Amino acid sequence: MRVAVLTSGGDAPGMNGVIRTIAVAGIARGWDVVGVRRGYDGLLRGDVIPLPFDVVDGITRIGGTILGSARCAAFGRPEGRAEAVAQIRRLGIDALVVVGGNGSLTGAHLLAADRPCRIVGLPASIDNDIGHCGLAIGVDTAVNTIVEACDRISDTARAHRRAFIVEVMGRHCGFLAMRAGIAAEADAILYSERQPSEDELVDRLRTVLRRCLGPEGRHKRALIIKAEGVAVSTARLVERLQQHLHEDAPGVDIRPTILGHVVRGGNPSAMDRLVGQRLGYGAVLAVDAGLHDVMLGWDVPELVGRETADPYIRAVPLADVLAETRRLLDGTSPLVRKRIELLRQVEDLLAL
Amino acid sequence: MRVAVLTSGGDAPGMNGVIRTIAVAGIARGWDVVGVRRGYDGLLRGDVIPLPFDVVDGITRIGGTILGSARCAAFGRPEGRAEAVAQIRRLGIDALVVVGGNGSLTGAHLLAADRPCRIVGLPASIDNDIGHCGLAIGVDTAVNTIVEACDRISDTARAHRRAFIVEVMGRHCGFLAMRAGIAAEADAILYSERQPSEDELVDRLRTVLRRCLGPEGRHKRALIIKAEGVAVSTARLVERLQQHLHEDAPGVDIRPTILGHVVRGGNPSAMDRLVGQRLGYGAVLAVDAGLHDVMLGWDVPELVGRETADPYIRAVPLADVLAETRRLLDGTSPLVRKRIELLRQVEDLLAL
Amino acid sequence: MRVAVLTSGGDAPGMNGVIRTIAVAGIARGWDVVGVRRGYDGLLRGDVIPLPFDVVDGITRIGGTILGSARCAAFGRPEGRAEAVAQIRRLGIDALVVVGGNGSLTGAHLLAADRPCRIVGLPASIDNDIGHCGLAIGVDTAVNTIVEACDRISDTARAHRRAFIVEVMGRHCGFLAMRAGIAAEADAILYSERQPSEDELVDRLRTVLRRCLGPEGRHKRALIIKAEGVAVSTARLVERLQQHLHEDAPGVDIRPTILGHVVRGGNPSAMDRLVGQRLGYGAVLAVDAGLHDVMLGWDVPELVGRETADPYIRAVPLADVLAETRRLLDGTSPLVRKRIELLRQVEDLLAL
Amino acid sequence: MRVAVLTSGGDAPGMNGVIRTIAVAGIARGWDVVGVRRGYDGLLRGDVIPLPFDVVDGITRIGGTILGSARCAAFGRPEGRAEAVAQIRRLGIDALVVVGGNGSLTGAHLLAADRPCRIVGLPASIDNDIGHCGLAIGVDTAVNTIVEACDRISDTARAHRRAFIVEVMGRHCGFLAMRAGIAAEADAILYSERQPSEDELVDRLRTVLRRCLGPEGRHKRALIIKAEGVAVSTARLVERLQQHLHEDAPGVDIRPTILGHVVRGGNPSAMDRLVGQRLGYGAVLAVDAGLHDVMLGWDVPELVGRETADPYIRAVPLADVLAETRRLLDGTSPLVRKRIELLRQVEDLLAL
Repeated sequence: MRVAVLTSGGDAPGMNGVIRTIAVAGIARGWDVVGVRRGYDGLLRGDVIPLPFDVVDGITRIGGTILGSARCAAFGRPEGRAEAVAQIRRLGIDALVVVGGNGSLTGAHLLAADRPCRIVGLPASIDNDIGHCGLAIGVDTAVNTIVEACDRISDTARAHRRAFIVEVMGRHCGFLAMRAGIAAEADAILYSERQPSEDELVDRLRTVLRRCLGPEGRHKRALIIKAEGVAVSTARLVERLQQHLHEDAPGVDIRPTILGHVVRGGNPSAMDRLVGQRLGYGAVLAVDAGLHDVMLGWDVPELVGRETADPYIRAVPLADVLAETRRLLDGTSPLVRKRIELLRQVEDLLAL
Repeated sequence: MRVAVLTSGGDAPGMNGVIRTIAVAGIARGWDVVGVRRGYDGLLRGDVIPLPFDVVDGITRIGGTILGSARCAAFGRPEGRAEAVAQIRRLGIDALVVVGGNGSLTGAHLLAADRPCRIVGLPASIDNDIGHCGLAIGVDTAVNTIVEACDRISDTARAHRRAFIVEVMGRHCGFLAMRAGIAAEADAILYSERQPSEDELVDRLRTVLRRCLGPEGRHKRALIIKAEGVAVSTARLVERLQQHLHEDAPGVDIRPTILGHVVRGGNPSAMDRLVGQRLGYGAVLAVDAGLHDVMLGWDVPELVGRETADPYIRAVPLADVLAETRRLLDGTSPLVRKRIELLRQVEDLLAL
Repeated sequence: MRVAVLTSGGDAPGMNGVIRTIAVAGIARGWDVVGVRRGYDGLLRGDVIPLPFDVVDGITRIGGTILGSARCAAFGRPEGRAEAVAQIRRLGIDALVVVGGNGSLTGAHLLAADRPCRIVGLPASIDNDIGHCGLAIGVDTAVNTIVEACDRISDTARAHRRAFIVEVMGRHCGFLAMRAGIAAEADAILYSERQPSEDELVDRLRTVLRRCLGPEGRHKRALIIKAEGVAVSTARLVERLQQHLHEDAPGVDIRPTILGHVVRGGNPSAMDRLVGQRLGYGAVLAVDAGLHDVMLGWDVPELVGRETADPYIRAVPLADVLAETRRLLDGTSPLVRKRIELLRQVEDLLAL
Repeated sequence: MRVAVLTSGGDAPGMNGVIRTIAVAGIARGWDVVGVRRGYDGLLRGDVIPLPFDVVDGITRIGGTILGSARCAAFGRPEGRAEAVAQIRRLGIDALVVVGGNGSLTGAHLLAADRPCRIVGLPASIDNDIGHCGLAIGVDTAVNTIVEACDRISDTARAHRRAFIVEVMGRHCGFLAMRAGIAAEADAILYSERQPSEDELVDRLRTVLRRCLGPEGRHKRALIIKAEGVAVSTARLVERLQQHLHEDAPGVDIRPTILGHVVRGGNPSAMDRLVGQRLGYGAVLAVDAGLHDVMLGWDVPELVGRETADPYIRAVPLADVLAETRRLLDGTSPLVRKRIELLRQVEDLLAL
């Protein structure tokens, strides 16, 4: 039995835990476990390496992915996938575990249609924008990293009575912004699921600035967390708000900070190591059970798909995952409505 | 409307987030929110302080509890509780939120019987040993702290090819040991829900040591995580194992490390700040709704009790919480069986 | 005896340790220690607060400054300083400790000329650009923060075989860039003390990219650390390098990351807590000894000024500090030549 | 030219930076750089591995030592060293860099007498107990780790108004205790350079407990840092103090915490990465210059030995290092008197 694991798309802390678990649990079953290097690109080139104990020992605590990742335009085309099927057969791979985000899982589903081998997807995306998955690999570390950055920014903001707009990842999904905003005691959280007009946004943030840093203001700083998916740019917001600062909060500065690639790396949190390894183990059991064309979701909020031995994991057909992802992104999923409802509570919670 | 919040028992990172949220969401409702100092002891003495914005500003990120905590023998006696009832009436408190572990929640339930005011409990315990609560306040930070300590120990263990037995908290509940063990790539996880005889334990660990560090060993270190509740002491285990080391793993040392109070403090993780604040907000809504003698559980695995506005939170009668806690501790809860079953998987996962 | 402490300019981790030490060592001497709020601006307004034990207890570990800081244009003008002198006399302040960077120390020196009271300066500047001071308060934390960010960036860079240009603070001084660059295993370090032409820079970095990520490249990522003082902008460099990437390092991306205010805050490192407290204590001894118009430098590389009881600290007249600072900034100080010489070694060290 | 590097004795964070720098700067010189595995034990067995770019890439940030370390009784005997000489000749090693503490440097000096090749020592010891070395590799990380642990302990201590005695490493040298004690706002610092009688110690600590936590106490916790070299055991001290707690600080608990191997590992701080790499580079230059039987000291307080290209580094004959180490350990070095003098200041600083 030969099992391959592949990491694809944006890297996420916790991917290495998946790799290690599949390797050690696979070795214990007598499998030949190999790693595909650099995602689908490596699959097309048949670039695999063995994963014996000493290669995977101690990697759970390391960020990124030891297998590498890459974008692969060729895999999006039928000829590219045909090449992948040929390589899988040539290499004698019986099962392939694909760890990645929506693009990678779409690729896995398309490949699965050709049935070159059993295919199991695992969700990894610091944006947490994957259907039928409560918490993707990498999210918890990213939230902690953002919160730590906000703590640092708050130190200097408090020293100077300043306002900051901190832009975090999340083009289509405000999950990171919401979690980090609560944890960092934000004074406002903006995200793409709710898109007010520019003027509405400015009005709302002016109220926040007055309440926090105005003459009768109750705080020493104002912290606004903004998901990158919000239509109005951070620079534009800062510019608009600056025009009114002399009346809203005299003597106060407002500054933008964009947290970019810093948020992607780092040693995984305990949670991401746990989620990565339990999902990796789930993939081993799924391969054992002959599952195909499914994703294993952690803490699936709608409890769809099939139960597994791990109470936190469910096996959902990849087709269902991708359909739900589309609904999440276009706003028609009931989850988006729930999330917006929750945000309203959060604003009450933070007394915004 | 006067609402009091009280932290009791062992402190847990995240308690301050509860305090802040109740204060700010309370202020927004026009409530008079006060903090009781030093747990039930302060309640007996009527020791309360106001909680205006500037007192709670920025405290979410701080470990411990700004209100202090203490043991209070007097509160265990009817006269003590009668005094507490008198103080609650004297101070005009309409609702009391008690944040703490099993002892504190038992106290809350006993007090609730006298109905001096509405009483809502929130679970905080780094051991995660509270009934009908998936994740108590403080657990996530404690797991991260243990895992970080294990990472440090692994560095030095690998440099010297050593074995370590790391003892972590958890008298009755192996949750910390299990989560930390997976995340830290432990080679064995021992906890009190499963109590083999001393000889069985020694046999099993000798196998682990041979497999990891024996002549053909596959690792550079052996890491054994042991919950404090395991009947055989860590010192005894080390002593027994040392007698065989010359044959099991020649040239190898085995050392004990007991992680004590270091694990209790520290800046709360993003998750504990989130759980603390969302539970704190849940308590505000529960007080609004007139709930009494209930605990709000986060991620309740059996989904008992009453749904709340937050999909992660359920309101469970304190009597049910305490009954389930007893079943957890004496091993008759189905959850304990599930946990042991999960541990078997974990051992397979770690290829132990 | 009334002693005031004031923090001014950009905040730096470690300032709170200064405040605490002056307060507790002052109280032990029977002094009345007060804090001036928001820097020179507060001084002009006579805005001082008492600093009893419970206000300063536990603040050493907190970033920023509990006294606040602010820019103060008025203090740059003689009338402003005259007002400050009047306030110092009105408040009965016998000695003033000013903690800040070059602007703040210049202010202290100008104020000292009027001798309103004894004036002692302490160097705090995460840029480490202050004359006769080997290590200013805040530098060690900032270096650690940058290095941690580079570690995170390296994780994702290695996963994708990417190049990153990370811009760090340091308009006139490459100290941060050099220290962080060594610690983070940078592949190139650019700073303002050495200003090659744009074309030279591009040529050099192309060599770096080829060596790291070219077809025969020896690394999995390229990390370029750039001080903000380098004349060519980061965006411009990225743009120029991208034009050649297809030949230098086919398939590789290059990305910019600007580490802004994130670097300024954060819990101080052990070193910054130590430096802050020992300098604070040095200030108490200096006030005791009647010193005036001096700065206490930590680890002064040229060993100028007067020895103190602490072997790491020397007392240097503020006039000399400011003169040396000018030489550091215009490049005529021998230290700048030494630093450039050291950078050449560092490049050899890193085998660039 | 074949150069070998060996890490020996207790591992210290920063050793990997040494290894990497010698490898990359050596490769740049066309050297054949090899690593000796497991210290002198590996040298006796001729166990060396090549150190090409990909083996050392990214290791600077990792704690421990990738080469491993071990105790080696055989090397203490002349026959053992004769075997080492034979292996060095057989392997064609032209220069050997030994990274370690006092035992390892003693071994290097004994080996150097036989002149099997050039021998350069580098100081690595988290205790900072090496002669003619201001800051050994590993110390800064260890201090930060201890301070972080004390922060955690302070959180829980403040919540409960408790006293803690925290025992840290340092059998013969109180450096760690002093630095960590200042940074953590300790209320007392005990170390072996000053050995009062048990009764004096108890009297002094009772005063501390009364001042901190007595009825008029000024703190919310008492934190006592104790180096392991203090003659009275931590358990004994706790026992003695407990007998008086009801009068000194009614209602207060006192608890011991022993920080053991947790302090040894961990990702090196920026400073340890810098010191390790600059010392490693210094070793490369020393080998280039034909130095033999010397240690490179960082920030040598007495400025003995020979200057090097790096202003922070001096080359001191190993014989002088070992002689000064003996004086440090038996208390006859002037540095010990200075250190005790400094401690007196620290006690004034902390208003103890």
